[in-house]
Amino acid sequence: MCNQPHTPKSFASLQPDGFDAVVVAGGDFPTHAVPLTLVEQARMLVACDSAGEELIRRGYMPTAIIGDCDSMSQEFLTAHCDIIYKVEEQDYNDLTKATRFCVERGCRRIAYVGATGKREDHTLGNISLLDFYRREMHIAALMATDHGVFLSASGTTELATFAGQQVSIFNLTCSHLEGDGLRWQPYAFAAMWQGTLNEATGESITLRGDGSYMVYGVYE
Amino acid sequence: MCNQPHTPKSFASLQPDGFDAVVVAGGDFPTHAVPLTLVEQARMLVACDSAGEELIRRGYMPTAIIGDCDSMSQEFLTAHCDIIYKVEEQDYNDLTKATRFCVERGCRRIAYVGATGKREDHTLGNISLLDFYRREMHIAALMATDHGVFLSASGTTELATFAGQQVSIFNLTCSHLEGDGLRWQPYAFAAMWQGTLNEATGESITLRGDGSYMVYGVYE
Repeated sequence: MCNQPHTPKSFASLQPDGFDAVVVAGGDFPTHAVPLTLVEQARMLVACDSAGEELIRRGYMPTAIIGDCDSMSQEFLTAHCDIIYKVEEQDYNDLTKATRFCVERGCRRIAYVGATGKREDHTLGNISLLDFYRREMHIAALMATDHGVFLSASGTTELATFAGQQVSIFNLTCSHLEGDGLRWQPYAFAAMWQGTLNEATGESITLRGDGSYMVYGVYE
Repeated sequence: MCNQPHTPKSFASLQPDGFDAVVVAGGDFPTHAVPLTLVEQARMLVACDSAGEELIRRGYMPTAIIGDCDSMSQEFLTAHCDIIYKVEEQDYNDLTKATRFCVERGCRRIAYVGATGKREDHTLGNISLLDFYRREMHIAALMATDHGVFLSASGTTELATFAGQQVSIFNLTCSHLEGDGLRWQPYAFAAMWQGTLNEATGESITLRGDGSYMVYGVYE
């Protein structure tokens, strides 16, 4: 297995067949067509804890529901015992437990949905986990929200865009960061707010950093 | 003027009279009683751009509306020209323009609402600005969302809590960080997800760091 994860090359258009698994977290359930299509066409659909109940209530059938299952009724647990995997350890949250489940089954290209909304500390934590998954678990991780897409990347990254696409860059460990195809030249931002409010000027952007960073782009 | 900003001492109960100004950003309009009460009882109510239209539509009367005003209709601009302050520079976003407006009028204790929801890159940027406002503009900044409160802090911080309160700590520049009154001992977390999912065990927590950090606590 190659330890260099594939980085998705575009957030202008997301192909559901580009992912081995879709993980649904317990934030706001998606309403935008992009994350909904990912859920509907997932090869493997893995739910974090209570998101499993939400999926089933909405008529989807998850491949697996992972979590500590504390909030599930006995009736639900019994009815869906064949797909429920109870994981009680405290070091990692449900998103990471679900990710590990996917990795153990050979998945390397994982899309995350429902990972924002509700508690903002969970939103921050879930977004930052994309970098952890890329670096430590060699996963090509992409998060599709109701507004846009987060990618974790390092080194040089070229992404397909559309002219005028709103883009934000969040530096994590770069001491040097630059790019092409953006309205404002990125640099090794010291704070998250400094990389926001940028914009693609054409059909691609290229970022070159000497460390890790995250890129966010809004939908067309 | 003292350059050491006062840090709000509690996120268990927020007193609207504890703030000189309330800034309403253009994210999701608040629905929870805590941010709504802050809006209703604000001494000075400052809206970021389109949030001004939202406030007026909902029957509130902002003291000022700050922004580039690009999205406002000519009719709205004419009707409310006495409270609209057009600021077109590109280096800072609307939240910072509104903050600067407040600071120029002597405000040092500022609560932010409507600063999360909608685009997640704006959410990340707005949350990170609290630290900038504390360090660079000497503001005691607090963000009240529909789920909890973000505080920016440094050094030693004691906060009133309630037993079982879900708390997350986001390290920014600490190389040493520890605390009391928490279920899990904080440390100088290298990633945002590492400080999430903590919990207050009693009526207060104390954090001791050698740099800046953010604290988030959910409402009771």
